[in-house]
Amino acid sequence: MNAPVAGPVLIIGSGLLGASVGLALRRAGVATYLEDADPDAVRVAVERGAGEGSAITDPRIVVVAVPPGAAGAVIAEASRRFPDATITDVTSVKAQPLGEAVALGADAARVIGGHPLAGREVSGPAGARPDLFDDRVWVVAPMDAGEPRRADDVGALARTCGALPVRMSPAEHDRAVAVTSHAPQVVSSLLAARLLEVDEEAVAVSGQGLRDMTRIADSDPALWRAILAANSERVADVLSALADDLQAVVADLRAGDGRPPGPSATLDALERGVSGRQRIPGKHGAGAREFAVVSVMVADEPGQVASVLVAMGELGVNLEDIRIEHVLGRPSGLIDISVRPGSVAVLEAGLRARGFDVRS
Amino acid sequence: MNAPVAGPVLIIGSGLLGASVGLALRRAGVATYLEDADPDAVRVAVERGAGEGSAITDPRIVVVAVPPGAAGAVIAEASRRFPDATITDVTSVKAQPLGEAVALGADAARVIGGHPLAGREVSGPAGARPDLFDDRVWVVAPMDAGEPRRADDVGALARTCGALPVRMSPAEHDRAVAVTSHAPQVVSSLLAARLLEVDEEAVAVSGQGLRDMTRIADSDPALWRAILAANSERVADVLSALADDLQAVVADLRAGDGRPPGPSATLDALERGVSGRQRIPGKHGAGAREFAVVSVMVADEPGQVASVLVAMGELGVNLEDIRIEHVLGRPSGLIDISVRPGSVAVLEAGLRARGFDVRS
Repeated sequence: MNAPVAGPVLIIGSGLLGASVGLALRRAGVATYLEDADPDAVRVAVERGAGEGSAITDPRIVVVAVPPGAAGAVIAEASRRFPDATITDVTSVKAQPLGEAVALGADAARVIGGHPLAGREVSGPAGARPDLFDDRVWVVAPMDAGEPRRADDVGALARTCGALPVRMSPAEHDRAVAVTSHAPQVVSSLLAARLLEVDEEAVAVSGQGLRDMTRIADSDPALWRAILAANSERVADVLSALADDLQAVVADLRAGDGRPPGPSATLDALERGVSGRQRIPGKHGAGAREFAVVSVMVADEPGQVASVLVAMGELGVNLEDIRIEHVLGRPSGLIDISVRPGSVAVLEAGLRARGFDVRS
Repeated sequence: MNAPVAGPVLIIGSGLLGASVGLALRRAGVATYLEDADPDAVRVAVERGAGEGSAITDPRIVVVAVPPGAAGAVIAEASRRFPDATITDVTSVKAQPLGEAVALGADAARVIGGHPLAGREVSGPAGARPDLFDDRVWVVAPMDAGEPRRADDVGALARTCGALPVRMSPAEHDRAVAVTSHAPQVVSSLLAARLLEVDEEAVAVSGQGLRDMTRIADSDPALWRAILAANSERVADVLSALADDLQAVVADLRAGDGRPPGPSATLDALERGVSGRQRIPGKHGAGAREFAVVSVMVADEPGQVASVLVAMGELGVNLEDIRIEHVLGRPSGLIDISVRPGSVAVLEAGLRARGFDVRS
């Protein structure tokens, strides 16, 4: 463990992220102070132990944790108020708010963009947690004029909060999240919206794949509108390329005679998908752990899944992931357990010896 | 439980689906016979108890369980060989193979399309299971000329296999799966393929949303090419409409000034996504159970998830679904447990009383 970041730290904005930054820093013994346009938010955050609500004149670091639309102006104001401080933020888009801040007079040498990848579907200081950033990626995004030691400050702040700092430019960050987060959000919403065009019986033939693909379509439209607006060019580029890809598959499907083996450009798209999927950190990711899946059929009764996991513990096998199949919205009896490949043999044998119905 | 379907039943094709149909029917005491171009497949299926390998001259029902590209011809041949039998199939596309069968001389009155929604990522009779169809939807799709009593036969067959028969026309079926399965498959593959365009650091900012959306991109490209080819017109229609939707969002994003609250057509797409998502049977589905989510932070050690589920069992709360958050491909300490809404209070209180860290 490195030494904690040098404080004091002023956090402007005492919502979920701001208050969680405060809790995480306080956990490491760093002096933190909180501000918010809403005095109730400060009060709740202070009560939760996220820091002091009193004024501070000489913060070493200022963390701006306000909604995307307000970030630029608040960063600029913080830069004016605290001419020696390193200023950072936690907004999920970087180039637009940072550019706006500089246009409003912020000091580009001292303003270092930040983005902890730790969103949850709750908001407000009541949902704040000291461990919200543990093991999460925290993007540190200095502008061209950014001073290296200021970027190092923000990296130390991220590490002190338990996160893994990853350095990239604001433009690189925005291109990356356009591909990995913003465009998928739009696609998920549009796929889910297609279901409004079909009748009730057709929706009944929905499987787990569609459920997985539309999960994030449940997100807050107003919040996402603001995020997409702030990264509109990058997202538009990705969505436009995706629309072109779709039209290429459409043309390919329509050109075919409708008989297997079927169109080759479509096959190419499917094969590229398999390759792209392998780049995602995780199950198949480069440098990350590779998992294998063991499937077990259990009775649809309370405690059945627990009994499988208890048996796993007895066998000394660590659970990496678990997935319960759903049929017509009800959980079916089939669970998929992800474990490290070296554990598959002992797990399968051990579960079978205990009378569990392991699928081959 | 209704009486089992009247046999004997001949199953042509002894792969995963064919052998599973045999096992499910044998479980109910129905006489079944198996054929396959590959004698080894029949031998394995017979050994597994899926039915008899001997010839039969007067099956009451014939189930064609061969790959999509071969289904039409095999249905037509079965119709000729068994002039009194009801003929059905298990292909995941309906209009194309049924139309081909009729063009090849099959009796459209006796041929009733079928599609059990029970695919697994394994193949061959060794992976067959008697409970593969339990509680699954099984589409029964008669053509216009189909005799009602023949469709009733196939419905009874589906019920005997443990499934829930849903009646629709071949065209209705193909339109439905184009929206709920085939188009999402292409979209998932193309989204995953986009990851081939970005560098390693960018992929590091992938979250759970992208992981969910690209899960089915792992599927077998050759199989999916055949499925998409057999339903090419319907899938092309859905993908084309989706590409138009994407271009509308692109135009909307590019027309904006990049500042919140942001473009309204994009907001509309996001809001329609929320509505569409609510139509999916399951978590939010009409007529299906509504689930609530309780989040628990656990230590990243063996047995921790099991201990939560054991406590749930002690509290008498049934697990509907469980999800483990992942960070950089590693499981984080946060698990999301889906339960019925009426169980939330007792579960949260009970877990807290046992010392678990329940998120508010």
